Amino acid sequence: MAWKQNRTDVRVTKIRGDRMYVTEDLIVREVPVTLFLNGKEFVTLLCSPDSLEELAVGFLCSEGILQQPPDLKSININSEEGLVYIEATVSQTEKTLINRYNTACYGRDRSIFYFINNIKNVSTVKTDFIKITPGQVLTLTDRLEQMSLLFRETGGVHNAALCNNVEVILFYEDIGRHNAVDKIFGKSFLSGITLEDKLLIFSGRISSEILLKAAQMGIPIIISRSAPTALAIDIADKLGITVVGFAHGDKLNIYTHPKRVTAM
Amino acid sequence: MAWKQNRTDVRVTKIRGDRMYVTEDLIVREVPVTLFLNGKEFVTLLCSPDSLEELAVGFLCSEGILQQPPDLKSININSEEGLVYIEATVSQTEKTLINRYNTACYGRDRSIFYFINNIKNVSTVKTDFIKITPGQVLTLTDRLEQMSLLFRETGGVHNAALCNNVEVILFYEDIGRHNAVDKIFGKSFLSGITLEDKLLIFSGRISSEILLKAAQMGIPIIISRSAPTALAIDIADKLGITVVGFAHGDKLNIYTHPKRVTAM
Repeated sequence: MAWKQNRTDVRVTKIRGDRMYVTEDLIVREVPVTLFLNGKEFVTLLCSPDSLEELAVGFLCSEGILQQPPDLKSININSEEGLVYIEATVSQTEKTLINRYNTACYGRDRSIFYFINNIKNVSTVKTDFIKITPGQVLTLTDRLEQMSLLFRETGGVHNAALCNNVEVILFYEDIGRHNAVDKIFGKSFLSGITLEDKLLIFSGRISSEILLKAAQMGIPIIISRSAPTALAIDIADKLGITVVGFAHGDKLNIYTHPKRVTAM
Repeated sequence: MAWKQNRTDVRVTKIRGDRMYVTEDLIVREVPVTLFLNGKEFVTLLCSPDSLEELAVGFLCSEGILQQPPDLKSININSEEGLVYIEATVSQTEKTLINRYNTACYGRDRSIFYFINNIKNVSTVKTDFIKITPGQVLTLTDRLEQMSLLFRETGGVHNAALCNNVEVILFYEDIGRHNAVDKIFGKSFLSGITLEDKLLIFSGRISSEILLKAAQMGIPIIISRSAPTALAIDIADKLGITVVGFAHGDKLNIYTHPKRVTAM
């Protein structure tokens, strides 16, 4: 089980009311993983140390570098050292990105790339391949919480799941918000899983960046047990994506395009 | 009150058990703010739209660009458009940073800067200017939760507070984990508040990046009601910083340098 390598024991001084004692406790791991693209160092991600292939491929999909399966020529992973070597056909999109970053890139983080570049490239999600009932949404979010073993043991990770109406198809956990979703993007790319008829359930807040990532994936419904931001809602409204927030127990809020959530 | 401008009303379809109805609800705002340094576009941050002066100055402090108060020549803010213009004396550190990013920067996010650069520059926090009792820690974390109005109304923000043993000195909320801490860094820089005798309370997980930011600020104690990562603990151990996690109710865990948390 991947999540076992994602945690480690540490020595901790616990205070419980008037008692103080030293013990061992499980804590979530965080490692730097450096990605080399066509022989050049490209990016270093801080992540949970599992599913590095999915993470690396998903990151390159998110950045618009990998667009079609034939773009990926080879991938070699050194898990011990946290190094991933990818050979790929670099699309025009990547060249645009590199130029943009070379002209004025100091201190920029990847959020900006989404704003200046992706919002133009992402097409509207118009599919009606999936509708879901409120009961199905709540059953799936409940299942995601049950599956979150690493969170229950360490309290330190985000998780994301790709689902159809009734079951969880992919499930990943990571200390990074983006990484958990990138792992789903990468696995779908590697395994040829269609996304326009699926929904994404995410443990964290739905920010503009997470919303744009779902849009890039072509996913029509994004669900969270947490809150969306107003900017994410604006973008989802424009791009035709259904945003569901605060899904928990027997309650949920639908912020955009409620037509996909039906009583049936 | 700043937090009022940080939220907005949206139309939402609510499902509560078998009932479905349309209503208005408060949701947290998220805006892009672009920072110009000495006339050049430098970075765009996604943030809550308050305390932009503190945020901009704190971001430049975090990046090692502003080191001493005389480095800051002027700051002009256009809140309406989300534009901040800063004139500053650029230190050698910034030149190093810019060169580094110009040689190989595509896709990098700011986490990497911390890893390749900051860990060498941050000095060990050796101060014993502050000790705190477990009771004081729990009183302060409890107060932080009470102060978090925006979170209670929208469920969508992180908060951070700068405290001494007994009171909250600065308090900021932001949709971005880093931004809330950067606002504290910026306000302290602008107002000449000493940091080596204070503690930082943070609502989110203590990742390596947040830990390194506290180290750069010279803060000896960082406290969270959430979990730290193993990498953050490793770095805190080396840098002499006390990490307290899961502080809530009458419980807390001390992960590093417990000598600063005393029964008194």
